[in-house]
Amino acid sequence: MITGKNYIGFSKSVESDTTVTSVNAFNGTVLEDNFFTATSDEIDKSVAKAKNAFIIYSKFSGAKKADFLDEIAKELESLGDELVQRASIESGLPEGRFVGERGRTTGQLRLFASLLRDGNWVESVIDTALPDREPIPRPDIRKMLIPIGPVVVFTASNFPLAFSTAGGDTASALASGCPVIVKAHESHLGVNDLVAGAIIRAAQKTGMPDGVFSSLNGDGYSTGQNLVLHPGVKAVTFTGSFAGGKAIYDLAQNREEPIPVFAEMGSVNPVVLLEEKLEKEAEEIATLYAGSITLGVGQFCTNPGLLFGVKSKSLDEFSAKLAEKMDEVSPSSMLNEKIAKNYSTQRNELISDNEILLSTKESSSVGVPTLAKTSGKKFLENRKLHQEIFGPLSLLVECEDTSELEEVLSKLEGQLTGTIIGTDNDLIQHQKVIELLESKVGRLIFNAAPTGVEVSHAMNHGGPFPSTTDSRYTSVGTGAIKRFARPICYQGMPDSLLPDELKNSNPMNIMRMINGGFTKSSIE
Amino acid sequence: MITGKNYIGFSKSVESDTTVTSVNAFNGTVLEDNFFTATSDEIDKSVAKAKNAFIIYSKFSGAKKADFLDEIAKELESLGDELVQRASIESGLPEGRFVGERGRTTGQLRLFASLLRDGNWVESVIDTALPDREPIPRPDIRKMLIPIGPVVVFTASNFPLAFSTAGGDTASALASGCPVIVKAHESHLGVNDLVAGAIIRAAQKTGMPDGVFSSLNGDGYSTGQNLVLHPGVKAVTFTGSFAGGKAIYDLAQNREEPIPVFAEMGSVNPVVLLEEKLEKEAEEIATLYAGSITLGVGQFCTNPGLLFGVKSKSLDEFSAKLAEKMDEVSPSSMLNEKIAKNYSTQRNELISDNEILLSTKESSSVGVPTLAKTSGKKFLENRKLHQEIFGPLSLLVECEDTSELEEVLSKLEGQLTGTIIGTDNDLIQHQKVIELLESKVGRLIFNAAPTGVEVSHAMNHGGPFPSTTDSRYTSVGTGAIKRFARPICYQGMPDSLLPDELKNSNPMNIMRMINGGFTKSSIE
Repeated sequence: MITGKNYIGFSKSVESDTTVTSVNAFNGTVLEDNFFTATSDEIDKSVAKAKNAFIIYSKFSGAKKADFLDEIAKELESLGDELVQRASIESGLPEGRFVGERGRTTGQLRLFASLLRDGNWVESVIDTALPDREPIPRPDIRKMLIPIGPVVVFTASNFPLAFSTAGGDTASALASGCPVIVKAHESHLGVNDLVAGAIIRAAQKTGMPDGVFSSLNGDGYSTGQNLVLHPGVKAVTFTGSFAGGKAIYDLAQNREEPIPVFAEMGSVNPVVLLEEKLEKEAEEIATLYAGSITLGVGQFCTNPGLLFGVKSKSLDEFSAKLAEKMDEVSPSSMLNEKIAKNYSTQRNELISDNEILLSTKESSSVGVPTLAKTSGKKFLENRKLHQEIFGPLSLLVECEDTSELEEVLSKLEGQLTGTIIGTDNDLIQHQKVIELLESKVGRLIFNAAPTGVEVSHAMNHGGPFPSTTDSRYTSVGTGAIKRFARPICYQGMPDSLLPDELKNSNPMNIMRMINGGFTKSSIE
Repeated sequence: MITGKNYIGFSKSVESDTTVTSVNAFNGTVLEDNFFTATSDEIDKSVAKAKNAFIIYSKFSGAKKADFLDEIAKELESLGDELVQRASIESGLPEGRFVGERGRTTGQLRLFASLLRDGNWVESVIDTALPDREPIPRPDIRKMLIPIGPVVVFTASNFPLAFSTAGGDTASALASGCPVIVKAHESHLGVNDLVAGAIIRAAQKTGMPDGVFSSLNGDGYSTGQNLVLHPGVKAVTFTGSFAGGKAIYDLAQNREEPIPVFAEMGSVNPVVLLEEKLEKEAEEIATLYAGSITLGVGQFCTNPGLLFGVKSKSLDEFSAKLAEKMDEVSPSSMLNEKIAKNYSTQRNELISDNEILLSTKESSSVGVPTLAKTSGKKFLENRKLHQEIFGPLSLLVECEDTSELEEVLSKLEGQLTGTIIGTDNDLIQHQKVIELLESKVGRLIFNAAPTGVEVSHAMNHGGPFPSTTDSRYTSVGTGAIKRFARPICYQGMPDSLLPDELKNSNPMNIMRMINGGFTKSSIE
């Protein structure tokens, strides 16, 4: 049930008269529910509760936190059709998409639960005492990761479930032992309300402390800004535009105590198309990429926005096929009016300056699949062409030769992904292309499309600036938990007082590095 | 041999007429060698060389980089007495200290070499393909750490060898695969010159690319500032004052592309003295702490600057003994005039406002061992008492009761270390004290002194802000290598093109996480 209230831990709170609403993204009509915005007093209360909850929650065993995450997944499933329908209405995407996205969201929660039950994620490292060492004895030293404190999560417009209220950021922060305060996204306030209620019920059912989770509605920028600047907040996550992410980063770095910000921002996800592969499989690749460019109306952070190739007959044939296949995709509603308007403006600017391979339809309210083309030379001259246009659009950059292709790649900014389409023979002949792309990206993909980010142990969803503000961490997959942890070292601590992960007997049976070697053995 | 020149990779360079000199710290006389400061052109050249070197060096095998690190250690040893003597003269510390510190420095280099030969540090994670998975197949995904690019190292006044030109920061950055540009410390220009020459010789002997290491002399702040702001620089390390570290951090975060800064700044390293232990071992603890407070004239980042206890007869007896033992330590020269002057000023201010347990001698040019005392109440009222005074000084804070002790601890800033002196019984009765201290520090020590930082796998030399600018990383021990690395994920990459660490056959025989489990097995 949608309450319209703020969730300050276990309390539903309304202190302000100001309300905000969300919009039916299919037709632009305002939805009837009113959501009360959080006051600065409510922000303070949520952080105060989170700080108190942290003292208790951070000491809970992995198994106890895992029960909480599993219960959140169950509560999400219990929301049934109401959640799927609301997500569809607030995003303009079909309901079927949210059956899938709900599965991804509950899958993430359960993956983190299993990670906690395994217990290995804390990176236990033990150097045992050497009392007889000369000239001085070595003390007993043991290190592991511990959580850092309350985390503020900004939710994403393009994933109302999987990157939002109970999405990957919340799941990984809660898994690490950090309480979470969510700033609800103005585009899907109803979904946020439903999901926040589910998380609170799960917290109460599994005996979590009041304050382990809060959710606040905001009016404009001030709610988010006040949260980022609050001294009790110890980290921030964000998924969205470069302007939004960078503004939050700058706020957080200029606090008296700077804090980590994990902002996943723009990425144009360059794709390099090599010739032998294009000659052999133009049709298949065109089909794959027409799907990838227009999937979810192009509103994915891994949408392939730049295609690079060397001038050739096969590149011409491929691009004609790609345009043909993209033309079969109908224009669709975008996530919200602002995104649709930005897309329309940027797309019109692009197509007025460049050759158009596909753009027959005109509309400012829906996402029209678009394929444009430019030369390597023009791309090098015009930095604007390097920037992301969020929507179902790709720019083909035709280079004169491999040397120009290499130059173009060397000038790219940091990206979440880079893709190479090539035969084994193509790859062997383009080692430098591979190395250039590797230096720019967080994930290097071969003969596939960048959309479809696997939630697994080996995934890296991150990349060099400006694709994220911290290339050292992933926001998808189990590695995401590391964002909210720091090492602590215990020197000479009595065994009975040590955390289980570091006790001599290794009661959790985890893999540890002991005196430089990996082992699950206990210590005599 | 001291050259006085800048080392721009393999070239010795002099483009400026400006020279700087270092000082005999024992008597304040200027030493005769002139060191030419780097021009902005020389800074550009060193970064350009580092960028080019990175392309080659970052792809070298661990074994090849290990040979380089081992050779640096050998070259340092070949410098013989000249290095030890110069370090003593430039720091005002006895030669014997530098025989030890040289051993620590070469030991660090060799530890990182062995880490590279082991190969495990890259955190290989592999999720193999699931071609039959429904609804969509899982691709083959493999992740590992790769180096981030050229690193600027600011060297430390208090460790001319172990935290300087070939110290832990340089060793860990080179180990990760990143070229290093050192900004020489104005206090030990001669030592820097000798060590830089040794590193260059080692690089040439082991076939490293020109630009893998550079060393620049500076005049005031501009050299360091220009290095931090250079777009080609990808990370910065610093060990020193809060003001210096925070200034570098702010510069780096306000670049167009923000970069990681690992600044290890001030720490007062609180020590909690519990009653039962004090009753039993006052004499031993006083001896231990008199040594720790005055070791190296108190010029260690882990110097215990704050002692906390609850008012009792045993605390009085302990503090009297501590004062007595500190009184036996002679005042000594400090690292440089600025440090000596700051110490004198801050110490005089402290002792004019607080009770003095020991401070019979007066001098502005040497470090006078000092023990002062204040109440928990005054400590809570006066934030100035929380700040580090760099030198052989400690402030005893006498609390009324355990509750005041807990309040005082809850108000402390982030610290590198926190120490608890207590019997098992004391510890069981002071769980909250342990937890409070744990939340503030990077290393929690039991019944020892915080000075003496072990270089090992389990060490964490770091801590919450403001002790460092990034609590998620250690600057001492093998974990320090992680500061200069980021994950990259390869999706569907042909096995022959994968780095050895991720190849099916596991040619390096390293521990990897495959489909969620740890194993050294190869993949069929």
